[in-house]
Amino acid sequence: MQFSAIEIGLLLNGTVEGNPQAIVNQLAKIEEAKAGSLSFLANPKYEQYLYTTQASVVIVNNDLVLTEPVNATLVRVENAYSAFSILLEKYNTIKLNKTGIEQPSFIHPSAQLGSNVYIGAFSYVGPNVKIGDNSKIYPNTYLADNVTIGNNTTLFPAVKVYFDCIIGNNVIIHSGTIIGSDGFGFAPNTDGTYTKVAQIGNVVIEDDVEIGSNTTIDRATMGSTIISKGVKLDNLIQIAHNVEIGPNTVVAAQTGISGSSKIGENVIIGGQAGVVGHISIAKGSQIQAQSGIGRSITEEGKKWAGSPAVPYANNMRSQVVINRLPELEKKINELEKLIAELRNISI
Amino acid sequence: MQFSAIEIGLLLNGTVEGNPQAIVNQLAKIEEAKAGSLSFLANPKYEQYLYTTQASVVIVNNDLVLTEPVNATLVRVENAYSAFSILLEKYNTIKLNKTGIEQPSFIHPSAQLGSNVYIGAFSYVGPNVKIGDNSKIYPNTYLADNVTIGNNTTLFPAVKVYFDCIIGNNVIIHSGTIIGSDGFGFAPNTDGTYTKVAQIGNVVIEDDVEIGSNTTIDRATMGSTIISKGVKLDNLIQIAHNVEIGPNTVVAAQTGISGSSKIGENVIIGGQAGVVGHISIAKGSQIQAQSGIGRSITEEGKKWAGSPAVPYANNMRSQVVINRLPELEKKINELEKLIAELRNISI
Amino acid sequence: MQFSAIEIGLLLNGTVEGNPQAIVNQLAKIEEAKAGSLSFLANPKYEQYLYTTQASVVIVNNDLVLTEPVNATLVRVENAYSAFSILLEKYNTIKLNKTGIEQPSFIHPSAQLGSNVYIGAFSYVGPNVKIGDNSKIYPNTYLADNVTIGNNTTLFPAVKVYFDCIIGNNVIIHSGTIIGSDGFGFAPNTDGTYTKVAQIGNVVIEDDVEIGSNTTIDRATMGSTIISKGVKLDNLIQIAHNVEIGPNTVVAAQTGISGSSKIGENVIIGGQAGVVGHISIAKGSQIQAQSGIGRSITEEGKKWAGSPAVPYANNMRSQVVINRLPELEKKINELEKLIAELRNISI
Repeated sequence: MQFSAIEIGLLLNGTVEGNPQAIVNQLAKIEEAKAGSLSFLANPKYEQYLYTTQASVVIVNNDLVLTEPVNATLVRVENAYSAFSILLEKYNTIKLNKTGIEQPSFIHPSAQLGSNVYIGAFSYVGPNVKIGDNSKIYPNTYLADNVTIGNNTTLFPAVKVYFDCIIGNNVIIHSGTIIGSDGFGFAPNTDGTYTKVAQIGNVVIEDDVEIGSNTTIDRATMGSTIISKGVKLDNLIQIAHNVEIGPNTVVAAQTGISGSSKIGENVIIGGQAGVVGHISIAKGSQIQAQSGIGRSITEEGKKWAGSPAVPYANNMRSQVVINRLPELEKKINELEKLIAELRNISI
Repeated sequence: MQFSAIEIGLLLNGTVEGNPQAIVNQLAKIEEAKAGSLSFLANPKYEQYLYTTQASVVIVNNDLVLTEPVNATLVRVENAYSAFSILLEKYNTIKLNKTGIEQPSFIHPSAQLGSNVYIGAFSYVGPNVKIGDNSKIYPNTYLADNVTIGNNTTLFPAVKVYFDCIIGNNVIIHSGTIIGSDGFGFAPNTDGTYTKVAQIGNVVIEDDVEIGSNTTIDRATMGSTIISKGVKLDNLIQIAHNVEIGPNTVVAAQTGISGSSKIGENVIIGGQAGVVGHISIAKGSQIQAQSGIGRSITEEGKKWAGSPAVPYANNMRSQVVINRLPELEKKINELEKLIAELRNISI
Repeated sequence: MQFSAIEIGLLLNGTVEGNPQAIVNQLAKIEEAKAGSLSFLANPKYEQYLYTTQASVVIVNNDLVLTEPVNATLVRVENAYSAFSILLEKYNTIKLNKTGIEQPSFIHPSAQLGSNVYIGAFSYVGPNVKIGDNSKIYPNTYLADNVTIGNNTTLFPAVKVYFDCIIGNNVIIHSGTIIGSDGFGFAPNTDGTYTKVAQIGNVVIEDDVEIGSNTTIDRATMGSTIISKGVKLDNLIQIAHNVEIGPNTVVAAQTGISGSSKIGENVIIGGQAGVVGHISIAKGSQIQAQSGIGRSITEEGKKWAGSPAVPYANNMRSQVVINRLPELEKKINELEKLIAELRNISI
């Protein structure tokens, strides 16, 4: 995909200064751009880069006054930053604007497809699946019996959705993520073996959720595992059975939430954190990366750190002393000796 | 899939009280059930919910005496709990009772398929693969050359099994799990680069094992990585080359076991724990979540926690003091001053 | 696949002693070998096993002098260890020597395939994809628009590569790994919701890189996420947007590197470690498993441990004291009492 400076000028309603035939085929930061790149200058702090950049085309503000000669073709617009954002959006839309049904794919006769959908090759759309309008199902994706997908939702390649799960509107799920596999439920027997507990619930993913790659969300034993509206989950996250995550909560990569725990709304959880099962975390909590949350957090809007986690400030203070522990122990031993001497004297 | 109250009554050999045409299409807990749900009441403690539940049909014990009017249709049976369990099993069996070979799929002419198998669309069954009776290979699954799958085994969509690996009977492996990828073995060269060490062993998964989603189990460098009979592994677990996991051991999500370590039987390992390479963990050990096991555990049946892990009780005691460290340091500084004063006096 | 002793002798330019028709169909360590195995004896320390091994054929050094009778057929060569390594390589090459295009597969007419490539069934090769000579794309793999794959590169089943990503020569990527999914970038809004930040960069994987199973590498927001020449990544690793990993760096399983961090060359990072965003780690650093790196490491070649990480030796010393904290606290309390007594006396 490539554009000329003149095309960009027309698209952004801007004025071209320099070679209107200059061609770009990628986007780059002004300080890193190579020939063939399109870049922008919005912040005056970076003006110096404009005179040395290798970019072929740079979007700049109308009111920019040049103080040195420029090699790049300029496209002048009212607001360079927002013009560039518009271009980003367009670029992504063109890149990802797949429609139609590729062959071979497997679409059960009982499935219902909305208008303007994309079904990639090697995708499997099972019995009674419903897919809403403008949704995109990339190749190698699997939708089991009775799965429902809303409108304007994108499932990237190899997403797997087990039976009965429900996915809302404007949802994005990245490659390799598994929705609705069995919860980890086993009843111990007296001989040391385990009997599987049937997992017959489902997963419900509400509108405006984005989920990263290779994340796993288990179905509920009974009822639903719920990812509420606006939640953002990163890559390689584990969400166990019957977990509920509140609206607009953000969870970074490799974190794990154990069975039946309830995370409130607008919580922020760092990477590689762990939450034990059957607890709740209050609205607005902030959990540092690598923390281990071992009990419910009932106070809203506080910061937590450590494993087991304590209030963030306490953790910081303890960490400082931990690094001084060897000296501290030495000091205690010296005090012990001094006291022994003093006792000898005073007795 | 839906059932009427009368069908449920016939299936469970029970008596219907109320509208025999009441229709249910999902299972739910009695306190959460909505219209169209089937529920059950076994524990008298929850009897109150029977009078307020939205469930359309509730399975109850024969000897239950109603104390208020009930909206739901009742199905009376000898034992409501076990009747409901039977129904759960049937429900799951119906849901998952796929058979036959879907097209398109890739089945090498030299592969041997047992009777009553399911091979989902877009599955790849390579040369000399053997699949036992009643086994189910869901769509987008890959079985490389010489893979052997036992009887009554289920591989959910997109399980990938590398060449020569062996999977037993009654095994369940969830979506996206990788069996038999190369162990992480590289020999360092003097110039800072690494040379790959060929990984020519395999993975052996014995009978009655269940493995979650997106877990990875590497093949042995030579010999076998072994997951013994009855082991249960959760999602996103890493099992390195030449690891051996003993019978009926249970491992929670996101735990990693490094190369050549041997985990005993009936061990329980919490989530996000790590085990270094070339050690062994005694039978019946219990490892807390987020622990780091840095050396062999030889005593059987003990509880461990922390990173590096120590006996559970010791870890608990140290954690308590860690949270008091700042006060403790202050106290030591005060003692230091007091001693200095005392020495001034006594000298 | 099977060989006779005489074939092995010819292949390795060795001398056969014993039954030249002895057949082997697997490789095994001499102390674990069963009938039908090929093994080798290089280290004289293990000579004892030669007289008891079940192996059918054993490769030994020319100068080995037998002190007892041997059941196995021997193949004598100049250097048994390197001869066995040659055989390993050949074995793996034969196992993995797939070529040709399997059907059904999806190959866009604009894609360019090099000579001698393998495209497995159910693989998706999108518009403008370029695949170099001798490269192998295993089944169920997805290459989006404009992806470039070099020569002699192997993508195992179900690798997914998003648009515009570039993969070099002699690269190996194991099953289920995702290259180029969106970075985790969201701008907070005043109402608590988030707006997605378009991720328009790509991922560049240089030559001689090996990546394990189910690892995720996110595309840059703008520019490139870079995995440099010779890097080795294990399974289930998270590499966030705009990360750069220097040449010959090795990262063990389940580690996570947050956005925009730069890891130097020849760094070694243990399993389950975490690196926060926007920092750099100096060349030759060694990071212990489960560490948490919270700030830049500027000194080269040092060892680090703990979360937050400190120099390895300091961490070891603090850990020792942590385990003694309860006693230490007791001692402090006793000292406190003694001092109180002393003060009573001296006042």
